[in-house]
Amino acid sequence: MPELRKDPVTGRWVIISTDRSKRPSDFRIERPAVIGVELCPFCAGREDMTPPEVLAFRNHGGAPNSPGWDLRVVPNKFPALHVEGNLDREGEGLFDRMNGIGAHEVVIETPDHGKTWATMSEPEVERVLWAFRERILDLKRDVRFRYILVFKNHGAAAGATLEHTHSQLIALPIVPDFVREEVEGAKHHFSAKERCVFCDIIRQEVAAGRRIIHENADIVALAPYAPRFPFETWLLPRSHAARFEDAPRNVYESLARMLKSVLQRMNRTLECPSYNLVIHSSPFSEQATDFYHWHVEVMPKLTRTAGFEWGTGFYINPTAPEEAAQVLRNAKL
Amino acid sequence: MPELRKDPVTGRWVIISTDRSKRPSDFRIERPAVIGVELCPFCAGREDMTPPEVLAFRNHGGAPNSPGWDLRVVPNKFPALHVEGNLDREGEGLFDRMNGIGAHEVVIETPDHGKTWATMSEPEVERVLWAFRERILDLKRDVRFRYILVFKNHGAAAGATLEHTHSQLIALPIVPDFVREEVEGAKHHFSAKERCVFCDIIRQEVAAGRRIIHENADIVALAPYAPRFPFETWLLPRSHAARFEDAPRNVYESLARMLKSVLQRMNRTLECPSYNLVIHSSPFSEQATDFYHWHVEVMPKLTRTAGFEWGTGFYINPTAPEEAAQVLRNAKL
Repeated sequence: MPELRKDPVTGRWVIISTDRSKRPSDFRIERPAVIGVELCPFCAGREDMTPPEVLAFRNHGGAPNSPGWDLRVVPNKFPALHVEGNLDREGEGLFDRMNGIGAHEVVIETPDHGKTWATMSEPEVERVLWAFRERILDLKRDVRFRYILVFKNHGAAAGATLEHTHSQLIALPIVPDFVREEVEGAKHHFSAKERCVFCDIIRQEVAAGRRIIHENADIVALAPYAPRFPFETWLLPRSHAARFEDAPRNVYESLARMLKSVLQRMNRTLECPSYNLVIHSSPFSEQATDFYHWHVEVMPKLTRTAGFEWGTGFYINPTAPEEAAQVLRNAKL
Repeated sequence: MPELRKDPVTGRWVIISTDRSKRPSDFRIERPAVIGVELCPFCAGREDMTPPEVLAFRNHGGAPNSPGWDLRVVPNKFPALHVEGNLDREGEGLFDRMNGIGAHEVVIETPDHGKTWATMSEPEVERVLWAFRERILDLKRDVRFRYILVFKNHGAAAGATLEHTHSQLIALPIVPDFVREEVEGAKHHFSAKERCVFCDIIRQEVAAGRRIIHENADIVALAPYAPRFPFETWLLPRSHAARFEDAPRNVYESLARMLKSVLQRMNRTLECPSYNLVIHSSPFSEQATDFYHWHVEVMPKLTRTAGFEWGTGFYINPTAPEEAAQVLRNAKL
């Protein structure tokens, strides 16, 4: 059974997922092989290589777990957390732990092995967002969960070991550190000013324009003022809203269009980088409606400087966001 | 001029080091070439390839910036921060910035290209610690600085681009996020219990034994209860002390012995991993004497899972610290 453990100094929770554990000799390979099309468990016709689907979009019919699907969501075959059991919260002197209860699902975004968000059609990308929403609404009904992490690793350098485009959901019984930090920062700003800090950022950035990458009816894509990574990009809904899953249809349409546009721009100017993408949304348990503002963060993996930042927790970014925004803004699509 | 910028949501400071900036086309190479012995600027006889030394240990004499040294400290040729100038703190609407004033130095730990901390003698490793102390005491006199980050990247996977063993110091006009978090956590524990949380951890862990890797007279090496990374290892002084640079001679001796022992154990069991090492010490400006406890953190780079953690800020560790401690404890030296 995986465990959730809390660091007694910083309060940071981590998952100790011993089910996936490796013997020391297994650690020698720093870069695991990427699974290509020959052995791909996500291609159409290989449905028996994944656990049974928990959701599928089938515009042209077809039985569950058989070909004909447009999108499938399946439990992760090697989950970081287990869905069955009790949390059994307990202390051991200074230390706090609970069982690693949670859900870990994979969204197989298309049956086509060769597609990416940059080459999929806008409705295909939008379909992925609707799948996220549907799974979040379902998982939220489980009262053991406090947060659902929606993320996508694209490319080997971003940690993806399967080539076939996919994203992941992890439902957690705790609120992860980085969300807590953002929620607390936003709460602090709101209590001082009675305004959402993200709304303030959007207003100031749209007026200034220097760090804006692209705008459409509902979404603003910008390079944040203090980015950790070169070409880090945030996609924010113009209208204040705390939760991704509560967005209206037009916002998903606009977000899909913007995601495709931003990733195409990165592909043009940065030569198809690996990237990590994550949706930041309000924890369920928080009364954060007034002050938190959901958004998407995209972090291309361009440099090998990660080592330093990993060790020190401190970020040195060699590219000014004004420069990154200009490059992406002017990309020829 | 590099800049320090603060994220308006989380309060996290980052360095935008545009001097080191690259054009987008320069980002295509994810793994820069490692500089080996042929072109090594850190080998004896190549002193003219580095900026002039700010400190050198020469047991056998020799003029500054000429061969004969045992250890040299030089300014980083490509510094992330500049030492000359004023901070010029300023706001721009929501945003806060200051000039990237700071020092960035490199400790060339031995003239011998082939050595590492695992193969250097104990007095050679101890000499590096004395060099850290001497540089910290000198840099602390500059009232613009609030924190000095001492760290070591070993191996290409940890971000080192020079093979020749070396470590780095960065003096900063702000306290980095990860230190602030630890200091605040430790302060919170102290105000609740009137005890140092690190002292509490040492007592509980030494009594339990399961996560202890090795102990000597002054230092305890352990796998932390909630490690972010497989085989993450902390080295803590048994006696409470907030600052690395105030340690007595015997503690440096013991720490050198323990560092060598821990790295030898990792080399045996993990096949000479790349690693990041960082010294966590109290910020100068903090009255943290009672509650903060300096220590060393070693993070071997064993997995490619970094992508996920980078994107989400959330850590999944496939190796339980009890297992890691057992493997390292039983390593044959």
